[in-house]
Amino acid sequence: MAPSPRDAGPELQNAMTEVADAVNRTIERLLPETDLAEARLFNAMRHGTLSGGKRLRPFLAVQAAFLFNVPSARARRVAAAIEFVHCYSLIHDDLPAMDNASLRRGQPTVHKKFDEATAILAGDSLLTLAFEILSEPETHEDPRVRCELVRALAQAAGGHGMVGGQMLDLIAEEEAFDLGTISRLQRMKTGKLMAFAVEAGAILGKAGDPQRKALCNYAHDLGLAFQVTDDILDVEADPQDTGKDTRKDEAAGKATFVSTMGKEQARERAEMLVNQSVAHLKIFEGRADMLKELAYYVLKRRA
Amino acid sequence: MAPSPRDAGPELQNAMTEVADAVNRTIERLLPETDLAEARLFNAMRHGTLSGGKRLRPFLAVQAAFLFNVPSARARRVAAAIEFVHCYSLIHDDLPAMDNASLRRGQPTVHKKFDEATAILAGDSLLTLAFEILSEPETHEDPRVRCELVRALAQAAGGHGMVGGQMLDLIAEEEAFDLGTISRLQRMKTGKLMAFAVEAGAILGKAGDPQRKALCNYAHDLGLAFQVTDDILDVEADPQDTGKDTRKDEAAGKATFVSTMGKEQARERAEMLVNQSVAHLKIFEGRADMLKELAYYVLKRRA
Repeated sequence: MAPSPRDAGPELQNAMTEVADAVNRTIERLLPETDLAEARLFNAMRHGTLSGGKRLRPFLAVQAAFLFNVPSARARRVAAAIEFVHCYSLIHDDLPAMDNASLRRGQPTVHKKFDEATAILAGDSLLTLAFEILSEPETHEDPRVRCELVRALAQAAGGHGMVGGQMLDLIAEEEAFDLGTISRLQRMKTGKLMAFAVEAGAILGKAGDPQRKALCNYAHDLGLAFQVTDDILDVEADPQDTGKDTRKDEAAGKATFVSTMGKEQARERAEMLVNQSVAHLKIFEGRADMLKELAYYVLKRRA
Repeated sequence: MAPSPRDAGPELQNAMTEVADAVNRTIERLLPETDLAEARLFNAMRHGTLSGGKRLRPFLAVQAAFLFNVPSARARRVAAAIEFVHCYSLIHDDLPAMDNASLRRGQPTVHKKFDEATAILAGDSLLTLAFEILSEPETHEDPRVRCELVRALAQAAGGHGMVGGQMLDLIAEEEAFDLGTISRLQRMKTGKLMAFAVEAGAILGKAGDPQRKALCNYAHDLGLAFQVTDDILDVEADPQDTGKDTRKDEAAGKATFVSTMGKEQARERAEMLVNQSVAHLKIFEGRADMLKELAYYVLKRRA
């Protein structure tokens, strides 16, 4: 069973565990064990995707899809594809040439358990697999919907999205960015994929523009709040709680929300962002309570 | 102007130069220079894709599309997307953790000119951009066609295709593979993306199954022939001709066609494969002469 987020209320906790378990089963089906000569690749992909994790992005996708009555099997496929992209980015981010992390979700990182070359390739094939899944008829019978999913994911994950944000994150070790650039960095690095997760639910459900826009705005603010609290956790938390190395940013001399505005102001900002994100959900008239709960949880989380 | 393949006949040489120049212009348009804070990423993507190269895969895609009267702007977009995938694989392959190459097409490799982290990210975003291009309406007005392109590219490039082949290639340094496994390795590592290039032309042109199958068979044999001659060039050629480090496989103790069957038998096999590939083109009744010429060129090339 997936690890339950201790700091979430019981209802949210149950809902997150349920989605995480369901998406883990989908990932297991999409990435079965193999005895091919190249099994090392698939073992590394499995290690990089099946070693725990809160499954926050899948939760966002499934909850957003739920608002538009999307069949859950479809939502779970898309959720798994998004998680593959998230996990590929973590695998590459953890490499010695990048963050040089040895621990992730309390487990050795992929290049530590296997080797660097295998970790690079495992990331590459997870990214490729995500697009394959989205393009398949099982994801949606309408090819227009599938194309829209592929395109929106590529925009969220590529050079003008997540990967561009990671580039900025590396440059942040050399250059002193101002608050505006740090916000843009985080919006690209974390926000865009989170926004895609909720947008994907709306695309699957052929939602109208106002609903879609509301969800994107919610996710953008939530993503930024998530990153601010991540920066706070990096200086505050116990590695035993987070399951990864902490104080990395400080050690790298990297400008973060905390280093730029101080811990207290960062906390206030996270609170402001979470309230803002919840306000966007009004349009759903109480049917998006889980997404609302999730936003408040981001503020309270200790891992 | 693109470098013309010296060993090709004048007609093929002109056709290849024309396609290379056109595709280079398309790549320039798809990857414009930028002054964003993350410009380093886009400069690395440009360096990895605009530093020469024969543009063999784009040539295959454009020639195959030509058989079905596909508008050339569409063919060039798809050709550029395929070249992005090829170039991303070279960038990652050249990394210190993989082949550790310092020279590619006579230029410093991306991680040499920039740094390892940037090279990893540049590869990641080129792969992502390829899928973005294929999913866009400019590629084809029919979303069914676009989805099919995305899916076929993902299958050719992922864990059961190119990346799986690269994994096998790394394992080949540790394990003594037999000829069957080496063939499978090369079919995955090189053949599948080449096959996708011609298949993409057929998909764009909504070609019938027999034509499509003929082109795929042609490409599979050609891809294998290409790899056998690559192995021969690795032990024979002058780095000044190939623009990359040679004798790498021998140094790594890697099983290749040459090390397994000897140079003479490898040459015979390449010839047999080329004749076989050309035979598949009969169905096009003389309209596929450029593809035929290309196959013979693979045998004669010195770089």
